[in-house]
Amino acid sequence: MHLTKYLIKEMNRVKRLNLINSITGIKPANLIGSSSVKYGDNLAIFSSVVHLGSDPALLGFISRPSQDVPRHTLRNIYENNVYTINHVNTNQIMRAHYTSAKMYDQDSEFEKCHFTPEYIDGFNAPFVKEAKVKIGLELKESIPIKSNNTVMIVGEIQHIFIPEEAITEQGYLRLDKIDATGISGLNSYYSFNYLNSFPYARKKDLETLNLKLSDEKATSTS
Amino acid sequence: MHLTKYLIKEMNRVKRLNLINSITGIKPANLIGSSSVKYGDNLAIFSSVVHLGSDPALLGFISRPSQDVPRHTLRNIYENNVYTINHVNTNQIMRAHYTSAKMYDQDSEFEKCHFTPEYIDGFNAPFVKEAKVKIGLELKESIPIKSNNTVMIVGEIQHIFIPEEAITEQGYLRLDKIDATGISGLNSYYSFNYLNSFPYARKKDLETLNLKLSDEKATSTS
Repeated sequence: MHLTKYLIKEMNRVKRLNLINSITGIKPANLIGSSSVKYGDNLAIFSSVVHLGSDPALLGFISRPSQDVPRHTLRNIYENNVYTINHVNTNQIMRAHYTSAKMYDQDSEFEKCHFTPEYIDGFNAPFVKEAKVKIGLELKESIPIKSNNTVMIVGEIQHIFIPEEAITEQGYLRLDKIDATGISGLNSYYSFNYLNSFPYARKKDLETLNLKLSDEKATSTS
Repeated sequence: MHLTKYLIKEMNRVKRLNLINSITGIKPANLIGSSSVKYGDNLAIFSSVVHLGSDPALLGFISRPSQDVPRHTLRNIYENNVYTINHVNTNQIMRAHYTSAKMYDQDSEFEKCHFTPEYIDGFNAPFVKEAKVKIGLELKESIPIKSNNTVMIVGEIQHIFIPEEAITEQGYLRLDKIDATGISGLNSYYSFNYLNSFPYARKKDLETLNLKLSDEKATSTS
């Protein structure tokens, strides 16, 4: 099926929303925790968290601006300068999904969705106690995306809480061993099967490896 | 395990690179195709593609700037204003991974990594013939991220090629039915198991659903 820009524009609004939200492939499922003196704790699911760099350790996420409707996460980050990113596990997907329901300012998604806020000394944003991977960040940049009036929030990692046994000898996180979850579109949740890892790609290996045959063999025996 | 900003800074460089690249959770595996009059076709794997909006249909990806080392994808997009994003399938992960090897300007990753460039009329960037989902984009914005001198490329979708049977009645793409692939860190590849979908989250459902019990039940019977 070939959809042009014109056909996409003419689609039913909900179908377009669902298709374009799922067209990039899998997205990570993360809960962002933040806090406000006036309104208390906030927790919201985001699928737009992206790695920006490792030294300094920077992560980004995309939000609609706080002008249209109240965006509690953004408002709290601007107030406190800190926030947390917490992995969603496979046995929390429904609770995590419902953090996206619009609530009153004074309601906490922690309480309504059965997650436990967890604070550490000197860091003014709540982690999710039930999460296996928890990251504490400090706001570095808020970058406007003019094309559609969204914003990318850039934060630097201050804390990581992680199960030691989930990290391989090379430093990688094995996502299948910590029940990590992915999102497609706005509402479909997936778990993962580990397929394979490859070394840093060097040009000289291209000459000796038969890439096409290797791939086909790996797939047929897996 | 608790890693502070200081401990992360002091880590072995490769271990830090691997950990921070995998800490956000799963990332989508996409091949970006581009072209240059002088240098021909280029193909490179990216794990940073992110959804920005559905109307207009905008996608972003992150690149290091072209000043440090030659960035063929960025150079070609700036030359032609168009590029393609193509899903990596589970039987192409090794070939896709090796598109990241540094090659000579005149070498094409299509040829070296056994993918077939495919052109359509009036669109000056190569799609990947073997991909099940192919997206053609036009450059809209190139946004500098000052915190670490990277850049976010924002493009508007002009074309989507997609297998009709992979789209649900609501417009969603079923990632498990098109052998879609995810990346953790820089070099680990995963396939997906569909878990569940939930309706648009409404506050009133929070009162009637027992979210915690529903999650636990769903997990124990799956």
